[in-house]
Amino acid sequence: MLNIKIILRTLGFLLIGESLILLLALAVSFIYKDGDSIAFLESALITMTVGGLFIATTYKASKKIGKREGYIIVSIVWIFFSLFGSLPYLLSNSIPSFTNAFFETMSGFTTTGSSILNNIEEMPHGILFWRSITQWVGGMGIVVLSLAVLPAFGIGGMSLFTAESPGISPDKVNPKIKDTAKILWNVYLIFTLAETILLFVGGMGVFDAVCHSFTTMATGGYSTKQASIAHWNSPYIQYVITFFMILAGTNFSLSYFAFTGSPKKMFKNEEFKYYILFIFSVTLLITIGLILSTNNGIEESFRTSLFQVVSILTTTGYATTDYLLWAPILTALILMLFFVGGSTGSTGGGIKTMRIVLLVKNSYYELRRLIHPNAVIPVRFNKRSVNPQTITNVLAFFFFYVVVFFLSSLFFMLFVDDYETSIGAVATSLGNIGPGFGTVGPSATFAHIPSAGKWFLSFLMLLGRLELFTIIVLFSPAFWKR
Amino acid sequence: MLNIKIILRTLGFLLIGESLILLLALAVSFIYKDGDSIAFLESALITMTVGGLFIATTYKASKKIGKREGYIIVSIVWIFFSLFGSLPYLLSNSIPSFTNAFFETMSGFTTTGSSILNNIEEMPHGILFWRSITQWVGGMGIVVLSLAVLPAFGIGGMSLFTAESPGISPDKVNPKIKDTAKILWNVYLIFTLAETILLFVGGMGVFDAVCHSFTTMATGGYSTKQASIAHWNSPYIQYVITFFMILAGTNFSLSYFAFTGSPKKMFKNEEFKYYILFIFSVTLLITIGLILSTNNGIEESFRTSLFQVVSILTTTGYATTDYLLWAPILTALILMLFFVGGSTGSTGGGIKTMRIVLLVKNSYYELRRLIHPNAVIPVRFNKRSVNPQTITNVLAFFFFYVVVFFLSSLFFMLFVDDYETSIGAVATSLGNIGPGFGTVGPSATFAHIPSAGKWFLSFLMLLGRLELFTIIVLFSPAFWKR
Repeated sequence: MLNIKIILRTLGFLLIGESLILLLALAVSFIYKDGDSIAFLESALITMTVGGLFIATTYKASKKIGKREGYIIVSIVWIFFSLFGSLPYLLSNSIPSFTNAFFETMSGFTTTGSSILNNIEEMPHGILFWRSITQWVGGMGIVVLSLAVLPAFGIGGMSLFTAESPGISPDKVNPKIKDTAKILWNVYLIFTLAETILLFVGGMGVFDAVCHSFTTMATGGYSTKQASIAHWNSPYIQYVITFFMILAGTNFSLSYFAFTGSPKKMFKNEEFKYYILFIFSVTLLITIGLILSTNNGIEESFRTSLFQVVSILTTTGYATTDYLLWAPILTALILMLFFVGGSTGSTGGGIKTMRIVLLVKNSYYELRRLIHPNAVIPVRFNKRSVNPQTITNVLAFFFFYVVVFFLSSLFFMLFVDDYETSIGAVATSLGNIGPGFGTVGPSATFAHIPSAGKWFLSFLMLLGRLELFTIIVLFSPAFWKR
Repeated sequence: MLNIKIILRTLGFLLIGESLILLLALAVSFIYKDGDSIAFLESALITMTVGGLFIATTYKASKKIGKREGYIIVSIVWIFFSLFGSLPYLLSNSIPSFTNAFFETMSGFTTTGSSILNNIEEMPHGILFWRSITQWVGGMGIVVLSLAVLPAFGIGGMSLFTAESPGISPDKVNPKIKDTAKILWNVYLIFTLAETILLFVGGMGVFDAVCHSFTTMATGGYSTKQASIAHWNSPYIQYVITFFMILAGTNFSLSYFAFTGSPKKMFKNEEFKYYILFIFSVTLLITIGLILSTNNGIEESFRTSLFQVVSILTTTGYATTDYLLWAPILTALILMLFFVGGSTGSTGGGIKTMRIVLLVKNSYYELRRLIHPNAVIPVRFNKRSVNPQTITNVLAFFFFYVVVFFLSSLFFMLFVDDYETSIGAVATSLGNIGPGFGTVGPSATFAHIPSAGKWFLSFLMLLGRLELFTIIVLFSPAFWKR
């Protein structure tokens, strides 16, 4: 029997949490008095009431949360948060269409960063703050989920790596969920604070510095400016944001070790090494390409290239330039990055560096197996043998990812006219990146996508954010049996 | 120690074989007297001489052919056949450029069917015959290789399925290579003959009927007309060719059983069932799409859709229409077919139906494993459990295929300006299909691709034809060790 009451009860408590964040946005809107305060007050009250009702009607619930309840809670929290989170946009009339408001909120909580707004600078401060904090909360949510909650449930999909890989096991941070979450929360908070200060020192206003720190650490990519980071035209700000994007795309428990006395652990970690290696190899290629194909100097080419590579690879999605205007092969290199993603246990989306590394390693071992069919050669990662079941899971994840991408791009052709837009919109939603290709590039928005298309992309964002399996398993008959 | 002598010796015998086929083309050129006879005579003599030299200088070779020798022979046979096979084009001046001649020959022997010819109707009959027979020989070669030779060597990559799957094991046809090859050869010959007769009855000239039967059974797709099958504008001819394309994309040992008294085996075979199911599902979708988006009647829409779906899915590549002119979503459906391919043990290329079926099944089982992590649930195929090692191999093959496709499309952007051409050219070469997208669609040729690009595509054709592993393993250090 599915324990529906505990699902509703948990959801209730989380909605109370969301209403508190709405009250925080209310406070911000009070400071700037842009006329959006009433909307936040109403939104907070509605959310709090519904949350309270969920809790009040389920006070007799058994506390048993099994695996199935876990999957369902994780999935519907994102949906309910997006539903209630779209209230401020609707009630303040900042985004009058429900479809658009839901898309913008889902894009926020999933830390995607795709936007339908064409007039960001006209938005009230409270709304801009809300937009940014949805990402920050979503990012924190995914880190806690993947490093603390899910491993405790013993849920396979997302806890796979953390349970398997030495050095980044949540057990080594702390075996108890609450303590682990608290530590991660502190790391997240300290990084956000550090970035805010550094951005402020670089000349960004306090409000913009806070909002951008929120969306950097979440690898979300929402900006308070229509032109994104290009608005500031400051190399200092670009380098600061690049550094924190790299940090946000790194496993948070690894960063915790690095900043609490064991920096060696970071550089002994294979995923981190390949992550950094990959960033700098692609940056080098694109830097050379930009030097050869534009009039920009070496530093500017390097900075632009690094920023764009890190922004896409970590699935943040900030822009300092429009990569669609680059030489086609350089744009194609960026498209390739859409399918890599950040590190496990980071706020980044996509396939993830560790999976890619395991896939490449396994391919090499597969070739060796062809030559020596009887030799048992396990794949090694971080100096330990990887369980063959893990390899199969990673390979199956890759297959799912490619098939979902393919079929979705095909289906999305119903809503747009050109392949590039279809492929770009699907890839960016599934990878939780933000900008896409074709008519949804870095200089454009998703406003012109038909409503049904926006709902479909919202679904893909959720699917990608919860690493496919969490959602897909809900559609499998085996899940609902008995 | 690598037995280089036996490699050269085997190659020598095979080149003698190629020279005999050149003599056959010489005979054809004698009949039509288009002035290409001398070229064929010279080509045959050169090929025979080189082959003879290889044999003469290696008479003391040990007869031991190990796995490594097997891999090398299989790979270089295709290269040498293409080198000597381009002689008639060069010597008759039909294709003066070496790059173009090699591309056309490799596209022939790998049964791809991509062409650089813009003036097919002006070609001498001998050359057209040679073009068609390169595909026929290549197709037969791949069937014998995958169903008879490689399993005997115990080579993993391509024999994987045939060794694993009940009902299509070469052992059940006949345990001895020569006998198996002879049976397959007879099946191939009978099908070719049957198609020739049916096409002739339908009003096609003998020469065209023979050439098209050759390229149908090979799922090659070379035509004697620039407009391909659209030239005849005959529903009868289209249906006949469609039927034989389906047959050519079916496992030949399965067809052997079906036509020798055990037709039930065919319909009990899971790969065949899914292959047929897939053909008709996509045909149905595209038929509906064509009815809605064009003025064509139901029969014509169905026929066009069926022909195009079968042509691409079996990796033949004949055209009765230009799918680039269809509604974008229908064209996108065709692009999807580029990544499926024919059945194992057929002349078709691509990923292959059986691999796709195993991948989908494994994904379903992976979901069940998420819910019941401790239950051992093996994937079943044709009512038997599939070895987990086989699943890993198939998953790794898929990963290789996607990565090679991705990186090659990226690399190919150096030679063309648009993504569609790059993706289309790479996908069609890797899948041994023929036509692509963008500027290399069904109504266009590959003539305008820069030379380096043509060499790269030729390499991809070989890579795809030998199912990646056979070639890639040659580049792995483990292969050359000791």
